[in-house]
Amino acid sequence: MLGRDYSGQNCSVARTLEIVGERWTLLILRDAFLGTTRFERFGRTLGVAPNILAKRLDTLVGAGIMERRPYQAHPPRHEYLLTERGRGLFPVIAALLRWGDAHVSPDGAPVRAVHAGCGGGLTERARCDRCGRDLGPEDVEWHWGPGSGRPEGPIRAGAAAGPAR
Amino acid sequence: MLGRDYSGQNCSVARTLEIVGERWTLLILRDAFLGTTRFERFGRTLGVAPNILAKRLDTLVGAGIMERRPYQAHPPRHEYLLTERGRGLFPVIAALLRWGDAHVSPDGAPVRAVHAGCGGGLTERARCDRCGRDLGPEDVEWHWGPGSGRPEGPIRAGAAAGPAR
Repeated sequence: MLGRDYSGQNCSVARTLEIVGERWTLLILRDAFLGTTRFERFGRTLGVAPNILAKRLDTLVGAGIMERRPYQAHPPRHEYLLTERGRGLFPVIAALLRWGDAHVSPDGAPVRAVHAGCGGGLTERARCDRCGRDLGPEDVEWHWGPGSGRPEGPIRAGAAAGPAR
Repeated sequence: MLGRDYSGQNCSVARTLEIVGERWTLLILRDAFLGTTRFERFGRTLGVAPNILAKRLDTLVGAGIMERRPYQAHPPRHEYLLTERGRGLFPVIAALLRWGDAHVSPDGAPVRAVHAGCGGGLTERARCDRCGRDLGPEDVEWHWGPGSGRPEGPIRAGAAAGPAR
């Protein structure tokens, strides 16, 4: 939480950043929107220390943005899923993604969000640039883009926008 | 810059966050969208140390998101204005703002963005909820909202979303 610093601010942007503004948190959400659910995969894609990752996920669970659900009993293992409230952050990620594609990705978008069944692209306002529909995370398929250095095509579920390191 | 940590990420979200993901930077942009231009006022609204504020503004100028312009010669004084590239971040701020209004502002929105000449409100997709137009920063007027603890009505230019401390 950035509470100590932002708490004097009676502002919805500041309150949102108290939850998602920590280093790594928006990238965790990015990966969640791309289909990542497991601790180990978040850690591998992000290259972030396990203790930091655990803290960030705890904050997101505590804020009702993700939920922690057992997927295996022996040994006990959990996965992290976006809640409805968490899916409401999709326009934040879409706006960051598309600004970055336009301004700081000279080789082209590393990843493209494609409107499933339509083929249009995602705009900075989380809308389809072909049919005009508002898009949520459930409406898009993720493809490697021209800036990925990989053959273009669908990213397999859970592979996330991870770097080719 | 968060480069050291995010630089392994071939991702437009990560690249955008390398520029705007530092603590305070998105709140500086929020204030800029609300009409703040001067160093002293950014500092007063944010309550951030001058050396940090100066670093953040330098990063934004270096990234072409803001430009520094003299407004007084004796003594020399500068103001900070959003560039076209900077105004392209409006959907990020709109999405953070509206998510916060919906989920972490129990007394109602502290600040409302009103579509000038239409009266509609700003959606999380930076669109007018009345006429449906895509909105940019030049299209909205800022009003105190129900959660502000102030009489509702226009915020005077440059007053920013500042807290009643």
